[in-house]
Amino acid sequence: MAMRHHDLTDPAAAETAGPVTGEALAGYLRAQATEFLRALRLHRETGGWGNGAEGSADAARALRRSARRITGSLHTYRPLLDADWSEEIRPELAWLSGTLAMEHAYEARLERLLTALQRLSGATPVPARSESLPGATATAHTTLATGARTTGTARAPRTTATAPATPATTATATTATTTASAPPGTPAHPTAPPDRGNLTVGAAKAGALLERQLTLARTRAHSTALQALGSSRFHAVADKVALLASEVPLTAGAATTDLRPLAAAAEERLTDAVAALPLVTAGHPYNAEALVHGLSPEPAPHPQDAPWHQVRLLLRLHRYAREVLHAGPEPVEVRLLQAGQALDRHRDASEAAAAAAQAARTPRIAPATAYALGVLHADQRHEVEAARYAFQRCWQKDRKERAGTG
Amino acid sequence: MAMRHHDLTDPAAAETAGPVTGEALAGYLRAQATEFLRALRLHRETGGWGNGAEGSADAARALRRSARRITGSLHTYRPLLDADWSEEIRPELAWLSGTLAMEHAYEARLERLLTALQRLSGATPVPARSESLPGATATAHTTLATGARTTGTARAPRTTATAPATPATTATATTATTTASAPPGTPAHPTAPPDRGNLTVGAAKAGALLERQLTLARTRAHSTALQALGSSRFHAVADKVALLASEVPLTAGAATTDLRPLAAAAEERLTDAVAALPLVTAGHPYNAEALVHGLSPEPAPHPQDAPWHQVRLLLRLHRYAREVLHAGPEPVEVRLLQAGQALDRHRDASEAAAAAAQAARTPRIAPATAYALGVLHADQRHEVEAARYAFQRCWQKDRKERAGTG
Repeated sequence: MAMRHHDLTDPAAAETAGPVTGEALAGYLRAQATEFLRALRLHRETGGWGNGAEGSADAARALRRSARRITGSLHTYRPLLDADWSEEIRPELAWLSGTLAMEHAYEARLERLLTALQRLSGATPVPARSESLPGATATAHTTLATGARTTGTARAPRTTATAPATPATTATATTATTTASAPPGTPAHPTAPPDRGNLTVGAAKAGALLERQLTLARTRAHSTALQALGSSRFHAVADKVALLASEVPLTAGAATTDLRPLAAAAEERLTDAVAALPLVTAGHPYNAEALVHGLSPEPAPHPQDAPWHQVRLLLRLHRYAREVLHAGPEPVEVRLLQAGQALDRHRDASEAAAAAAQAARTPRIAPATAYALGVLHADQRHEVEAARYAFQRCWQKDRKERAGTG
Repeated sequence: MAMRHHDLTDPAAAETAGPVTGEALAGYLRAQATEFLRALRLHRETGGWGNGAEGSADAARALRRSARRITGSLHTYRPLLDADWSEEIRPELAWLSGTLAMEHAYEARLERLLTALQRLSGATPVPARSESLPGATATAHTTLATGARTTGTARAPRTTATAPATPATTATATTATTTASAPPGTPAHPTAPPDRGNLTVGAAKAGALLERQLTLARTRAHSTALQALGSSRFHAVADKVALLASEVPLTAGAATTDLRPLAAAAEERLTDAVAALPLVTAGHPYNAEALVHGLSPEPAPHPQDAPWHQVRLLLRLHRYAREVLHAGPEPVEVRLLQAGQALDRHRDASEAAAAAAQAARTPRIAPATAYALGVLHADQRHEVEAARYAFQRCWQKDRKERAGTG
């Protein structure tokens, strides 16, 4: 475990490797630019975004991945790079990766919300009780299942994502495979049966509403991405990256400048931002903090989430800064990965909660639909709280281990 | 700490005190019967339930308190008591304490739900944003505050009940004292301002709806309690308790029978029931278990809560059984009290969540109201989960301490 926390931004620890200078940065940027060009070629070979092939989604992911790493490095190691060039390319790469990210984000958000609705609807109907209204329950389940299929992504029967796999949990969360028996043409809007079935129909309607809204948003994001990739703005940035793959515009002194103080500064910005987080509160389970303002009149984003989103970005910059220092293959930094995953989950749940709240403002929805969206919103806000708790655990644990081994 | 866990149901530990026999049981029952009669006299002196005086609420609580202890002891120490007599009085006392409990339960439930709604509405409006619609926010807060006043209970500005008192938490949870400036005659149904204010108005309407429904239920419970206390059935049970205060119908062998094996059996029933609880899941924060079935078509009660409610009752029986063994003043058993409080909170949150779900089934409510009730329901289900976590911590901690000190 101590090996994993071997800190490369610590000058003493990196002594054996000798100084890391602008050459390493140039090598890293060239490699990332090459990755970018490869992803672009892959994207063209798979026929572009138009046919929605799996390969082109991979290509988009790879494009974003390298674009993020280039912009991140330009930011952290700014003093070593030609300022004018850097100022010019950075916003363009940020625009590109931002534009390409949207479609996937909407798709993932819908997936997350439909999965949550399915869990909240009770995977298996309670035997003695569902008998009183078996039709309503079956219809609701079917609708959700059908909805899941039409988006073209595989939605496996769910087991609670955040629950530990204890026998008790698994027993309750096992999903009935009603999907198999559902007729393919089941309409998305079953007529509401009276009385007790209301709320589950509400969940089905909420799912259908979210599906409509987020699918529309995703389609628009797709068109925007397509337009972006065909634009002269994109071709200009692609040309710049092509140049970068062979020639990195370093400053005169870059070849002898040590990168590590700059990497250490990036780490410090991260630790400072983490120190400003309400980690003591986050470390108390069920602190109910994330749902404060849960019914406030303001739509997304939630102001209390912003510092966490900021830490997520700083953590990423720190990770990329470390990659530059490592000429060879990156060592697995478990704690950074886990902390990053917790913050990704925080961001995703925060945005999903906002989408549920937003959907509840749709005019003329049924009360049962609104109720389901309220439950869903609160559920996702608790996911936000859970993600903060997970981040806190991961971060403090690491500090304790460092104190113990270092 | 080790002193507190000195176990009186453990024969070895109680050796110095000598055997505890039927005499102790008779003494305890006489004392509880005397308490019962004193509470009844107090109730009559304070003018009965009719005028709703504070003293008569205390009297009702004291009546229930002794009635529960008598029935509990009759249950645990059944073999030492005249069977016919015991069979006759037990259901009557249970009926009485059950009937008297309802009014307070509805009142507490409303209190809990309105407090939660206030927290979820955001105690202090977010400054930069509330400016866009100050009227809507103020109206909503006012309505809730007015609602709180009309029930005649003091609702102090809230600080998050489950949150630890860290600076960060307190800062966010400080409640604006809009109550002071609210005009007394503010109507319970403000007209809905359009757009962004929707959801907060939803919270206000949800509060008003819950208030109507639970106040009605409380009023009915009050009438039922009044009727019960004037009934011949009540007079019969009061006469029986009066007899019990002087003469406890023990069996022939009771005077020499050791109570401790019976108390140990009560403890064993408790530990068995606790062992059957999903404590591993409950011990993982944010396991999201309590909200599974959150949108299921079935109204209260939640089937997964039943084993916890059962443990709550068994814990109470265990506590009363211990009281009998203690002739003198009962030592403070911190862990039993804490575990009991966690289970009380579990029960209260479970019933409050059900009340919110039930209110959402009211015909013709606005979508914003239904949304707020959905958020409220989920919030209370998370309270359920939090209470399970608290119980688990308290229980396991005690076991570890016992293992360490014993």
